[in-house]
Amino acid sequence: MPLDLETDVVTLTAALVDTFSESLQEKEIADDVDTALRAYPHLTVEREGHTIVARTELGRDERVVIAGHLDTVPVNGNFPSRLEGEILHGLGSCDMKGGVAVALLLAAQISEPVVDVTYVFYDGEEIEAEFNGLGKLARTRPELLAADLAIVMEPTDAGIEAGCQGTMRAEIRTTGERAHSARSWMGSNAIHALAPVLDTLATYVAREVEIDGLTYREGLNAVGISGGVAGNVVPDEAAVMVNYRFAPDRTEEEAHLHLQEVFEGFGLTVTDSAPGARPGLTEPATAAFVANVGGTVLPKFGWTDVAQFTVLGIPAINYGPGNPMYAHKADEHVPIEQLRRVHQTMASWLQS
Amino acid sequence: MPLDLETDVVTLTAALVDTFSESLQEKEIADDVDTALRAYPHLTVEREGHTIVARTELGRDERVVIAGHLDTVPVNGNFPSRLEGEILHGLGSCDMKGGVAVALLLAAQISEPVVDVTYVFYDGEEIEAEFNGLGKLARTRPELLAADLAIVMEPTDAGIEAGCQGTMRAEIRTTGERAHSARSWMGSNAIHALAPVLDTLATYVAREVEIDGLTYREGLNAVGISGGVAGNVVPDEAAVMVNYRFAPDRTEEEAHLHLQEVFEGFGLTVTDSAPGARPGLTEPATAAFVANVGGTVLPKFGWTDVAQFTVLGIPAINYGPGNPMYAHKADEHVPIEQLRRVHQTMASWLQS
Repeated sequence: MPLDLETDVVTLTAALVDTFSESLQEKEIADDVDTALRAYPHLTVEREGHTIVARTELGRDERVVIAGHLDTVPVNGNFPSRLEGEILHGLGSCDMKGGVAVALLLAAQISEPVVDVTYVFYDGEEIEAEFNGLGKLARTRPELLAADLAIVMEPTDAGIEAGCQGTMRAEIRTTGERAHSARSWMGSNAIHALAPVLDTLATYVAREVEIDGLTYREGLNAVGISGGVAGNVVPDEAAVMVNYRFAPDRTEEEAHLHLQEVFEGFGLTVTDSAPGARPGLTEPATAAFVANVGGTVLPKFGWTDVAQFTVLGIPAINYGPGNPMYAHKADEHVPIEQLRRVHQTMASWLQS
Repeated sequence: MPLDLETDVVTLTAALVDTFSESLQEKEIADDVDTALRAYPHLTVEREGHTIVARTELGRDERVVIAGHLDTVPVNGNFPSRLEGEILHGLGSCDMKGGVAVALLLAAQISEPVVDVTYVFYDGEEIEAEFNGLGKLARTRPELLAADLAIVMEPTDAGIEAGCQGTMRAEIRTTGERAHSARSWMGSNAIHALAPVLDTLATYVAREVEIDGLTYREGLNAVGISGGVAGNVVPDEAAVMVNYRFAPDRTEEEAHLHLQEVFEGFGLTVTDSAPGARPGLTEPATAAFVANVGGTVLPKFGWTDVAQFTVLGIPAINYGPGNPMYAHKADEHVPIEQLRRVHQTMASWLQS
């Protein structure tokens, strides 16, 4: 169904929610977005897979990226959309078709923004990093993302959340010697050997770091533990998986070094990690955007795609309609007041 | 194939090994044993399922049970038997068709033993306790097992191993509060809450208990640990499974109380347990048997079916050919010297 970009933000959000787009099945919604944007001659539209990039080319001094992902987590009894009073319910209404609707309307309706804008609508955000359309673009065509500021329209309850913390998962593995549990002194118990690791985790004091006036709170948590061969065997292997959420003053390398220090003497293997993103509130473009939106800026604790921009040296913030607590939930929804407010704030900023 | 009970112990062991009898598939071997024993008029033979009981009824002052299980663990590239030099290889050669062969020859060939004998050949020993033919008999026809001493012919490397330790498995579970790991201070980590449990296990000093001159060594070990919801979630549940091997001076109730003391403050659930068996070396019948066999008596650390007799108040010991280290192994085997020695020792004792 063609997307009408001359409608209001609530109608457009509902239309997007009603277009099924679970991760890896974004062709239809990407086609719709692609077709709709190409109708506007003030936009230069390019497509890479199911990622659509639409740019204004006005020769402005500054350029801003406005980005949103098109995919959703799987349906959970919440498809299609349902409007109830002042709330739009449905899969993706919060995460993040509300933000995508705002961005599409801005792209279509503001032909002469005060800064040049690069709109990016991408696929594969809700699944493994390798499928992330924004990440692919950053690797293969970084010039398409060049900008002074990026705004990722993930749900933030219509407030600005700056930067994001990094995340690193690492496995700490202990070894022992297998033996029959009836003669346990013949062996060495790898699960018992995890005791100091759990002690360290239980007594760990997480850092609180102030950056640009925002306080980031770190965290170091066991997210999994396993070990055991059989009910009558002293186990020779055990492992705990930890997740370190680190403030954006630390690089991934520094985070890794920190974990090695914390768990000195244990075998530690990083299984995956993603860098944080500094809030960049002192950058002129960011400061101007913050001043325009108003309200309190909060630090972003969770990892988001703003970090993709940090890798490219571009300050990035999260700003979008919807309470992130409802993302990935069966009762996902977005208040239409937030859809309208975020749309209005962005529109006035681009025309101020 | 009919079993020849007039042959030598090596030939009979090989014939038994060559009769497939994985647990729950003991019909053929039980039929063979049943038929072979009924040919001897000095024996009163009864059958319960695939458990055969053959008794002498000579009115002796004392009665001894000689028991062995007919089933094996699954084939592991070690079927049928293979005689190589002085070693008989094959599934069940060690655990415990060598012992069964000895018992069958004694039953057939010694028509007037100095004590009355109850021979028990049973099924379902290598799997869950509910299938254990000896256990069934103890519950349904305990009078068939009445005796002054029981000898379980499990492999002991042809030495006497007295009594056995009890075993108890218990789960210790911790709870917490689930939260996104990016905002871990909103939750409470159940894996971290296991730290004092692992500390307790790592520093636990196991008892050594002397009974009838034998030193039993206890053990308390984690045999499994689990926890974790997802890589980005503070887990709200975690559990460690412990296995307590306790000396036979403790009942199951006392073992349970001990675990509750050791893990005070934690939720502890016993998942299964089996009592130990006192060595009973001071009982006249046991002492006489030990004197006859000679050699050093060792404590049995692993749990065996001797405990089934303890529940009935009958002292019981383990004595049989084969090194128990090779039980359940692909290279399972028994030295023919041990088959002959154990046969000779038992035969001379029953006729002394």
